[in-house]
Amino acid sequence: MKATIERATLLKSLGHVQSVVERRNTIPILSNVLMEARDDGSLRLMATDLDLQVDESVPAQVAQAGATTVPAHTFFDIVRKLPEGSQVELTAAEGKMQVVAGRSRFNLSTLPRDDFPVIAEGELPTRFELPAATLRQIIDKTRFAISSEETRYYLMGIFVHVADDKLKAAATDGHRLARVTVDRPDGAEGMPDVIIPKKCVGELRKLLDEVEGTVEVSLSATKIRFGLGSAILTSKLIDGTFPDYNRVIPTANDKLLKLDPKSFSAGVDRVATIASEKTRAVKMAVDRDKVTLSVTSPESGTATEELAADYGSDNIEIGFNARYLLDILHEIEGDTVEVHLADAAAPTLLRENDNSPALYVLMPMRV
Amino acid sequence: MKATIERATLLKSLGHVQSVVERRNTIPILSNVLMEARDDGSLRLMATDLDLQVDESVPAQVAQAGATTVPAHTFFDIVRKLPEGSQVELTAAEGKMQVVAGRSRFNLSTLPRDDFPVIAEGELPTRFELPAATLRQIIDKTRFAISSEETRYYLMGIFVHVADDKLKAAATDGHRLARVTVDRPDGAEGMPDVIIPKKCVGELRKLLDEVEGTVEVSLSATKIRFGLGSAILTSKLIDGTFPDYNRVIPTANDKLLKLDPKSFSAGVDRVATIASEKTRAVKMAVDRDKVTLSVTSPESGTATEELAADYGSDNIEIGFNARYLLDILHEIEGDTVEVHLADAAAPTLLRENDNSPALYVLMPMRV
Repeated sequence: MKATIERATLLKSLGHVQSVVERRNTIPILSNVLMEARDDGSLRLMATDLDLQVDESVPAQVAQAGATTVPAHTFFDIVRKLPEGSQVELTAAEGKMQVVAGRSRFNLSTLPRDDFPVIAEGELPTRFELPAATLRQIIDKTRFAISSEETRYYLMGIFVHVADDKLKAAATDGHRLARVTVDRPDGAEGMPDVIIPKKCVGELRKLLDEVEGTVEVSLSATKIRFGLGSAILTSKLIDGTFPDYNRVIPTANDKLLKLDPKSFSAGVDRVATIASEKTRAVKMAVDRDKVTLSVTSPESGTATEELAADYGSDNIEIGFNARYLLDILHEIEGDTVEVHLADAAAPTLLRENDNSPALYVLMPMRV
Repeated sequence: MKATIERATLLKSLGHVQSVVERRNTIPILSNVLMEARDDGSLRLMATDLDLQVDESVPAQVAQAGATTVPAHTFFDIVRKLPEGSQVELTAAEGKMQVVAGRSRFNLSTLPRDDFPVIAEGELPTRFELPAATLRQIIDKTRFAISSEETRYYLMGIFVHVADDKLKAAATDGHRLARVTVDRPDGAEGMPDVIIPKKCVGELRKLLDEVEGTVEVSLSATKIRFGLGSAILTSKLIDGTFPDYNRVIPTANDKLLKLDPKSFSAGVDRVATIASEKTRAVKMAVDRDKVTLSVTSPESGTATEELAADYGSDNIEIGFNARYLLDILHEIEGDTVEVHLADAAAPTLLRENDNSPALYVLMPMRV
């Protein structure tokens, strides 16, 4: 293998693939990135952690086709430190890959390309396209609610399914739930319910930053594949059953509070300063057109803040975990957030308005 | 106590004092900042860790003089989160301090001001002034060499002394030494040798970012005090004997290598990418007008880079810890660095030229 590539192109692509590679691996080749120079004038880079794989092709001058694998993080660091604008010459032979740029020369240990594991995609019968912007929105408005509890592995991802002619994405950790509903794209009808793992969501989101236009999604019950321009992300899906989350979305919360999400979130953030790290509990006392936020901490003292609001139902006092509330308010884009309350012990519904694709449910805390 | 102060003024000053306060304290009052409103229209803030104390006065509208102490980090976080441009009203009474700004209201637990420990300065017979820029230079060019080895506590600071009508500052961890020499300011003659602790150096450097003009330095054999505009930093000195560092500064290194510090440092950084985390050893092979940097790592492979240089003595091969070399090169400001070599086992001297106030000594490594 012998190929020459611009440092900037190589660096960008390595940036994409290296973040899939775990820092510590018991299987040495999982620390490596596969480099394949092809006669069509492209260099293919590939990295995997056995559950998630990224595969990207970039233009290069290929003098001799061939492939090898080198340590991904080391190679990324080297390319990052090469002078801007330099041309990088890659030559693989006899168990080494030589990297030459300007007056720098590296000889990296390699492992055989044939040992590099590739995720077998199998059949991916469902295929549809989603605008990159829609996919970004789905991820941004749900990922914060993904659970990180290993014992409930089926909550450690975003659940995506089709219902009522819509594509719905939901995540929950048992304390809060986030759901986004968008129009069902052509080709998604009849798709199996899938749970996309958190790490795949994270890598996908990074790649989406650079994508305009649409993303090609192909999936089966066990694998999902995202085609993003020159990069393809393939991931195993979580093999588990996501709970029927619809039954936790309240439908009869009759007390409607409306307020400005920015002052609401600034106020919660301020009073929560003195909340104990463990509970982070903030009390909301809702009166006619007024909300009083308060926190009482045995160590630090008390904090209160009054907010103007739009409210006409019975007075209510309810407590929430400040961090969970802030996560949700952070995703509300408009000038108003609707808080649908029932009582101090009931799940509370938050959303921008009844047209907004995103909806949030938050469990209260006793305060 | 009752005072009103602009949020920006309070925040800036709290920023200075809160960083002296340790995150964990066994003595509760050491977590607190002393707030003292005075009839002259000033608010004094003070924090201490018993070894280091910062004392700052800022303008405030004082309705009632008085003093109290509140948790420093919590108070800083609260003020940070208050709306920009707001006026902050502080009222201390009955074991609480009330903080009111806009529609936010906090009641913080306090501890009695009389329990707040103050470092007794005692007599500080030596007094001189130093331009803030000179003090910044002294710190920047020596602090990286301060040891963090608790067993050699006398190396855990910057040693400052007067010799040959000069003020000299030195730091070393046994592997490298940095020394800055400046003109002796009036008043420094006859001063005791002092070792300024690392934490004091760090806090002083932060405060210096905002100081123009001169800094007033007062010291005895046990305490040092820096007057920086509205802030006063007082620190205990390290009670120990700094080794006679002059004997490690080589005077007969006869092989002079000159090169561009920027390409040198970029080259060292690049080849060190594959060096093992533990040794970080880089080999320099110095030939006529050429330096070849190289690293060999059993795991990763090899790296070499050639640099143009100005050199006419006998060829020499010598190894250095890449990080230590980079720390030094980072502080070289001109277009040339002089490397004075003797042999592969001897301390090497680095400096910009023979007029530069800073000088560095680096111990070689076997490679």
